[in-house]
Amino acid sequence: MTPYEIIARKRDGRELSAEEIQFFVRAFLAGEVKDYQMSAFLMAVFVRGMTDREVSALTRAYLESGDVMDLCDLPGLKIDKHSTGGVGDKVSILLAPLVASCGVVVPMISGRGLGHTGGTLDKLESIPGFKTRLSVQEFKKLLKDHGLAMMGQTEEIVPADKRIYALRDVTATVESIPLITASIMSKKIAEGIDGLVLDVKVGSGAFMSELDRARELARSLIRVGKEFGKQVVACLTNMDQPLGNKIGNWLEVEECLDGFHGKAPQDLMDLTYRLAAHMLVLGRKAGALEEAQEMSRAAIASGRAFQKFLELAGAQGADVSVLEKPEAYPVARFRVPLEAWKAGYLSRMHTREIGLAAVELGAGRLRAEDPVDAQAGMILFKKVGNQVQKGEPLLEIRTNKETVIEPVVQRLKNALVITEHPPVQQPLVLEEILR
Amino acid sequence: MTPYEIIARKRDGRELSAEEIQFFVRAFLAGEVKDYQMSAFLMAVFVRGMTDREVSALTRAYLESGDVMDLCDLPGLKIDKHSTGGVGDKVSILLAPLVASCGVVVPMISGRGLGHTGGTLDKLESIPGFKTRLSVQEFKKLLKDHGLAMMGQTEEIVPADKRIYALRDVTATVESIPLITASIMSKKIAEGIDGLVLDVKVGSGAFMSELDRARELARSLIRVGKEFGKQVVACLTNMDQPLGNKIGNWLEVEECLDGFHGKAPQDLMDLTYRLAAHMLVLGRKAGALEEAQEMSRAAIASGRAFQKFLELAGAQGADVSVLEKPEAYPVARFRVPLEAWKAGYLSRMHTREIGLAAVELGAGRLRAEDPVDAQAGMILFKKVGNQVQKGEPLLEIRTNKETVIEPVVQRLKNALVITEHPPVQQPLVLEEILR
Repeated sequence: MTPYEIIARKRDGRELSAEEIQFFVRAFLAGEVKDYQMSAFLMAVFVRGMTDREVSALTRAYLESGDVMDLCDLPGLKIDKHSTGGVGDKVSILLAPLVASCGVVVPMISGRGLGHTGGTLDKLESIPGFKTRLSVQEFKKLLKDHGLAMMGQTEEIVPADKRIYALRDVTATVESIPLITASIMSKKIAEGIDGLVLDVKVGSGAFMSELDRARELARSLIRVGKEFGKQVVACLTNMDQPLGNKIGNWLEVEECLDGFHGKAPQDLMDLTYRLAAHMLVLGRKAGALEEAQEMSRAAIASGRAFQKFLELAGAQGADVSVLEKPEAYPVARFRVPLEAWKAGYLSRMHTREIGLAAVELGAGRLRAEDPVDAQAGMILFKKVGNQVQKGEPLLEIRTNKETVIEPVVQRLKNALVITEHPPVQQPLVLEEILR
Repeated sequence: MTPYEIIARKRDGRELSAEEIQFFVRAFLAGEVKDYQMSAFLMAVFVRGMTDREVSALTRAYLESGDVMDLCDLPGLKIDKHSTGGVGDKVSILLAPLVASCGVVVPMISGRGLGHTGGTLDKLESIPGFKTRLSVQEFKKLLKDHGLAMMGQTEEIVPADKRIYALRDVTATVESIPLITASIMSKKIAEGIDGLVLDVKVGSGAFMSELDRARELARSLIRVGKEFGKQVVACLTNMDQPLGNKIGNWLEVEECLDGFHGKAPQDLMDLTYRLAAHMLVLGRKAGALEEAQEMSRAAIASGRAFQKFLELAGAQGADVSVLEKPEAYPVARFRVPLEAWKAGYLSRMHTREIGLAAVELGAGRLRAEDPVDAQAGMILFKKVGNQVQKGEPLLEIRTNKETVIEPVVQRLKNALVITEHPPVQQPLVLEEILR
């Protein structure tokens, strides 16, 4: 068993044994398999695929590269949510406190924005003082005291994924279902959860633009979750337009604050309630989805969810006054509207392009080491299906970088389609896979 | 056009433009495309293949990475031979002086042994004083004065291949027809030749064990050669057993010395005459193969070929006395026979294994930086089809490393098959592709 032979077997489309996969991942972490060998292997996996057994073995090899959190001493079921990433997807910030306020323990480990998608950590860090770098001990203490904690990946959790993802990102091997499955599930299993709700995004702003592929990914994630004894359900949701009306780090927190007061846009509220309902059912706080959904609405209406958010933010070091008076938050220097160039219906939004425009404004990053600007982003005044008058503002961009305004406006014009007739409206939740 | 997009296109099985291929290779040499990106690309090429247009573009990109030798000021046609590599393949040493002695200019750039195959440079360097590191100027002067020169790859000739081959070697991407084609043809075209005879080896000791694949490779090499205005013909020859009876650097030179006196084993003489005939036809020294073959035999019989070899060796710094009295050459410390363990017919030789056994004895290298032992190797007393008595020596190993004797003997026993009935004999030249 040499690295060369393992690469050659996968190259030829043959099935690798669990031992071979484990050996290869370990040897990579030990520096015996080089980056260029791993990337040849990743490309072979991308093109040839992997069997179910191989995906399970890869997930296990990832998992064994680091620590698995032990949350057994905390009473109750621990349930998390994972989104495959989209534009304007700020659900976690609203959802986690909501579900925790209903008594489910939510150990949430989130990522940063990369490429056209935003990341929960960057959004949370736009709140002055909010600390997302926690030790495992701090994380567990927060969970014990508040039933909720939100942090970033640590060095101890699945280091194999961290190093392999960095290679995938530059070798065109990201969009592989076996590789995505091992990456997501190893990290979630390492959190010590009992159950997981997956929000698999589908459409022009998602990694999977086709429903078939998104369904295949969801099934793969659920299968591996079950194999490791976790309850997993998946919602396939529409990412053919941004979620909610605000894109950008602080802007999205602001929209979540509206959400805690029940005043965020409908799509954001609906998706939050739906995902919350699944988490409450998995966490055995409700027997059926309808009951759970009512429970979620009540958590918002009563103010309990918001109180939990303030409690969490305070516990993680944030200045909560700004969450109570968001109007005090500094605003970006440049605010420029994009006006409709003709009358009609906004019928399509190239969501990936919109995400990349937000990156250009300063809200995201193309490389992992780039800084982000908390104030940058955009506010949408129109969504798909809305009627528009010529000259009416479609959206407003916000940035501190004057030079990007002109190209971003042009980019956004090309990303929006106005037609004479209204488009066929797509549902927000396309499919739910509960097994 | 970014490296990422180019990798992704090939990954998805789409055709790359000549500009994209050129950009990618250039960026790699400039350090902008990293090793791990190149190896992902190479694996994508391996699995997805390349169209004829892509292979031509890759060959051109390789070629443009270095210098192309200009031999126009030398009168006459310049013809070379290239073998895809095998075990005991010492033909070049016999062939090049033979053809040069008939008036064709032979600018031969050879390689070193790697893995189970030997290399002409290592064999020539077993001759005391023989210098294979020449500058382009020295090489051209030798060609002018002697009509023949034999040297190793320089830094100036196709540096892209040198760097990319090193990656292919450790990422299981060697046996790809598009990649082999670009690698071989770019180097041969860079020599400034007019024509090329290919010896494409087929069988258990070759890179291509299947005739179909070898034929496909030959056609690809010929097609690219034509596109660059070169006359190319290919012989597909049997490598299901070693060529000749001696394996090892000096041992093979010794067998060539026998060959110059017309006394080498039949298979080695036959193949040399056949390849020489093709070179003489391409070099317009004969109109037909039969005539050319007669001319070759005469060059050996008259001693002209041997004189040319002595002339070349002297010009390249060798001590020619040892070529005239090879019995004076020092012999390896250990000489151990392998005796037949039963009576019957030697019916199969796992030639790759035999090549690897020679490496273990010290005759070759597994990594490019390993040293080689000029004296190590083996002498075969029996070839496929020969009858053997129990206890009769099948071969003799020669080495200076006592510890490897036992494992090599075991390895060789497993590589040889003795059966009750004689095997069906295979022809030496399986096919000739002249277009």
